[in-house]
Parts: sequence; structure tokens; C-alpha cells
Amino acid sequence: MKQCYLLLVLGLPGMAVANEPIQPVEKVTVSSPEKVELGKMLFFEPRLSKSNAISCNSCHNLATGGVDNQVSSLGHKWQEGPINSPTVLNASLNFVQFWDGRAKDLKEQAAGPIANPLEMAFTHQLAVETLQTMAEYRTRFNTIYGKRDFGIDEVTDAIAAFEETLVTPNAPFDRWLKGDTKALTAQQLNGYKLFKEKGCVACHNGVAIGGNSYQKMGLIKPFATQNKAEGRGAVTGEQQLIGWFKVPTLRNIELTAPYFHDGSVWDLKQAVTIMADIQLGQTLTEQESDDMTAYLKSLTGDQPQIVLPILPPSSPTTPKPEVKS
Amino acid sequence: MKQCYLLLVLGLPGMAVANEPIQPVEKVTVSSPEKVELGKMLFFEPRLSKSNAISCNSCHNLATGGVDNQVSSLGHKWQEGPINSPTVLNASLNFVQFWDGRAKDLKEQAAGPIANPLEMAFTHQLAVETLQTMAEYRTRFNTIYGKRDFGIDEVTDAIAAFEETLVTPNAPFDRWLKGDTKALTAQQLNGYKLFKEKGCVACHNGVAIGGNSYQKMGLIKPFATQNKAEGRGAVTGEQQLIGWFKVPTLRNIELTAPYFHDGSVWDLKQAVTIMADIQLGQTLTEQESDDMTAYLKSLTGDQPQIVLPILPPSSPTTPKPEVKS
Repeated sequence: MKQCYLLLVLGLPGMAVANEPIQPVEKVTVSSPEKVELGKMLFFEPRLSKSNAISCNSCHNLATGGVDNQVSSLGHKWQEGPINSPTVLNASLNFVQFWDGRAKDLKEQAAGPIANPLEMAFTHQLAVETLQTMAEYRTRFNTIYGKRDFGIDEVTDAIAAFEETLVTPNAPFDRWLKGDTKALTAQQLNGYKLFKEKGCVACHNGVAIGGNSYQKMGLIKPFATQNKAEGRGAVTGEQQLIGWFKVPTLRNIELTAPYFHDGSVWDLKQAVTIMADIQLGQTLTEQESDDMTAYLKSLTGDQPQIVLPILPPSSPTTPKPEVKS
Repeated sequence: MKQCYLLLVLGLPGMAVANEPIQPVEKVTVSSPEKVELGKMLFFEPRLSKSNAISCNSCHNLATGGVDNQVSSLGHKWQEGPINSPTVLNASLNFVQFWDGRAKDLKEQAAGPIANPLEMAFTHQLAVETLQTMAEYRTRFNTIYGKRDFGIDEVTDAIAAFEETLVTPNAPFDRWLKGDTKALTAQQLNGYKLFKEKGCVACHNGVAIGGNSYQKMGLIKPFATQNKAEGRGAVTGEQQLIGWFKVPTLRNIELTAPYFHDGSVWDLKQAVTIMADIQLGQTLTEQESDDMTAYLKSLTGDQPQIVLPILPPSSPTTPKPEVKS
């Protein structure tokens, strides 16, 4: 018992300080660095878009918390998307992908934007054919998948492998969970207490502090929005799930404004106040909102250190960008 | 003499093999790493644009040879620019900046796109005010420039400091210049011989293999183009300089298609053939074009290893993106 206590005080990795409803996120062990490197290239590859101007990183910018800080993303020909882009950071921890959960995992998700006419506006076939015109890609896919004639399955598999590495460990709150009692300020600690007492933690729990359930947006009071997204109900055809969305992760929330699926709120404290009101029927005092906002800022972890990949040059047979059509 | 010969054989850095009209590019010694780091942040900072969606790196992508591989860049509201974006790699070696030389150096250049309505579509004042809403920027500028109330001068100074590091040493041709006789293939060596004999080297010489003079595009025969750019003449008002442009660097040319100021030619061999024809009045054989193209591919150097910067979150007072106006 004394030994265990000492370990806690020392804050050794993997040791939880107590039986909390939230768990620290841990570094990922990479089993296939070659695949992750290829996935990184593809994540930054603008030639996966019809215009050759949009990559995964355009909307999930790893310099800015894995998002683009737009109400909704700008896609092909500057078209605005129908919903706020969720962060790619810690996305591997989501139980499903997209706000409406229409993709079961990162691999399936990665296929979506490439072929979405509002986003990268390409087709899977053209994207793959484009990559296949470059010798370096053929070699890399061959090394990893044993085939030079790779398809969209291998492309999205590699992207997913890279995305799985994009976790953000070592947030102040994680350090606190692991026993570093000085990692949070008194205000942040009080914010966390409120976060649990008010009921936020009912949906925002687990390693991702969210990302593991659907919930109705506007559970207690209606959520006023111009956004037309119908959420889970549009996927399953169940009327009662219209307006239900995947509960987003709160990790790195300080970096990922604007908030909610409609990107309507830019201020984190305002988002906290609205959530308490419409999801829990609670009116927070200014102090409570401040404390909980301070707590949420303790969820910013170490951002992935990304060395920008060097992409292979196009070959004479690589299709040219189409920016006007 | 024997000693000198040995040094050449060993290919020690800084030793030129002979009196060639082209010199190797050398690594840059960074005197102010803090300033370079800040400049890197600003280079990747989309909040320098009105839409918060366009950064320097959008058009000068360091994953793809410092260009966007577009005929002309896509700017605010998907507007197409008037001219092909030149590479930022080795741009510090250019005697002036932009195709028409209207900026005297990198600092002056960096100010252009921010305020260009076709590009980032912001104003210098709004860009600076945006940065000043973020505590991290104020601290960093204060540390480097001794003022928290920095202006566009400091912003562009930092960007230029970063850009000065973006050189690409160690190209096969540089290694050959330094005495590594095996660095070029026989074909490449023959291509270089032709490059000199045919007269390409009259304009493409020096460390940047270009970038140190203006020349008329279509010197011997007219250059057929739909592009309306008038080049140097539009800057100076001299009728005789209409159609004159800065001779571009040929370093990393394999990565920077499409070619010419109008971005009209995607194939490097075709670009070589056209240049020989309209600038020098020479009709190249297939073999000659192939050899010179092979030589040009020996000019691809070590690409800068860029760790993606982590940008500070916006504050409640940071102006919001404007994507529609």
C-alpha cells in the first residue's frame, strides 16, 4: 500500500490517481512506421483533390489543433461544407466517425472527403490513378501492401494509420489524473468538480472525454440553428434520431473553435454556458462558467510533432488539376 | 598541388571542381533561431488572410518544391492569380522578387500577397491586429524585436528570415561541382555540356542558376501566351521592357511544374525544347532535349526539413474569418 502511494506521488505513467470517469490518453506505439509515413504523405497530398489544391490537412490542419477554425470548411471552388469539421486529433478514439457516425472508422472516414463534391470533389478512381502515375507511391505501396496496383482501400488504410498516431498525451489534466497534483490550478480543479457535478461528464467521459455516444443537440431546450444537418437520424432513417450527433471529444477544445456541429459559437465560455443550459437545464453563474472553461483548457495536450512530408513530383502522365469544373 | 587534388577527390564541402559558371548552394547558418521559428509560424499562419484559410504555404507549399503546382494560384474566393507562383526555395538568392522584380527583397515580397485582393485579400493593418490579439505572438515579437506593438515590418522581417533558410543544398549537380565525379550520370553530364554550349547558361548561371537578371520571354521568336502579364515594363513604365521577366532559378525545377510565368507547360522536356527555340533559336534533337532534361533533374537538392509549427489559439478578440466578402 505504501509502495502504491509512492508510485502515485511520483506520477508514473499509466497510474491513475483515482477512479475518475475520464482516463488519460497515451502515446501510440507505431507498429508500421513505413505505413504511417506513407499515410502522412497522403494526408498532405493535394493531388487527392480534383483541384490539386485541397488535402486532408486543409480542413484538419495539424498546425491548428487538427481543424481549420472555420464555421464550415471551404472545399472545391470555395464551396462551404454543411457542417463544422471535427478535429482529427484523437479521432481514433471516437467510436464512429463524422458527426452523424456514418463511417465506422478512420479508414472509412478518409474515403469520404476525397469523393465529396463539396470537399475534394474527386473520385476514388481518379485519386488512385493520380497516385499510380508516380513511381515513388507505387514503390511505397508495393513495399507495404505487396502490390503496386493499390486501390482506395490501401490509400485510406495508410491515411488511417497516420491518423491513429495523432493523439495528444500529457495534457495538464492527464498529468493530474496520473498523480501530479500540481498540474491543475485550483480554478481548473474546481471546474472539473463542477464538470462532474453538473452532469457534463454523463456524455463527455472516457479517454476522449466524448466521442463514445450519440446525444440529442438540445436535449432539454431546443438548439436554435440555421444549420440543416439532421445528424444520426438521416443516416438510420429513424425520425427520433433527427438532431442527434456524436458527442465530440473535448480534448484540445481550446484550439478548435468555432464550436458545435454548426460552428456557431466562437467563445469557449459561451459554449459551456449554452451546453449547460440546453443539454442539462442548468444556469451557470459567471464563476462556474469561468471555472469550467479553465478546466477545459487543461485538456490541451502535446500536439503531434509533424515533419512535413516531401511529396514526389508529378510525372508526365499525372492528371492535371481541374480548378474550374 | 597533390594535396589540393586529394581534397577534390574527397569532395570536401566548399571545394569547387572547376571554374564553372554555376556555383553550389550552401546551407544557411541561422543567426536568430527565434526569429526563424516565428517566421515559420507566420509562413503557415492562415489568419494572415481575410478568410483565415490561406497561408504563405498554400501557394508556396514546402511539401511540393515551394510551389502549388497550379497554372496560377487560387486565392480568396477561389480567384485565380495573374501569374504562376514561383518557388520560395532558394528565393533568397534572387536579385529581386516576383517575376517582374517589383519587390527588392523577401521582406518586401512577403507583404504583397497578404494585401492582394486576389490572394490573401487582407490588409496589413488587419493582419497585424489579428496577430496582436494572441498573447503568444505578442510575447514572441517582444522577445525578438523589443516591442509588443509590432507592425507589418516586423511580420515580414520574420517571414523573410524563415524564407532565407529555405535553401536546397546537396543536389547531385552540387556534389559534382564539389568534386564528386560520380554524382552525375553520363547523360546528365552531357546535358550540362549542352546547357553551356547551347547558351542556356547565359541567363541561367550563378548559385541559383538564374534569378540574377531580367530577360525577354521570346527573345528570338515570339512566345505565344494568353497570359496578360507585362513583366518588368509594367513596373518601370519602359515600353521596351514589356514582356521581360526575371529569369527563374532552375533549382528543383523537377518539382515546380507547370513552367514559365504563364504556367502553360507541364512537361520539363517540352519546356527545354521551347526555351531553346524561342530564346536561343536552337532546334534541339530528341537526344539533346532528353540529356538536358536529365541534367535539370540533377538540380533537385535536399528539401528543407520543416517541423510543422503549432500556432496559438485565437483569443476572444481575434477577428473572425470572412469567407464570403
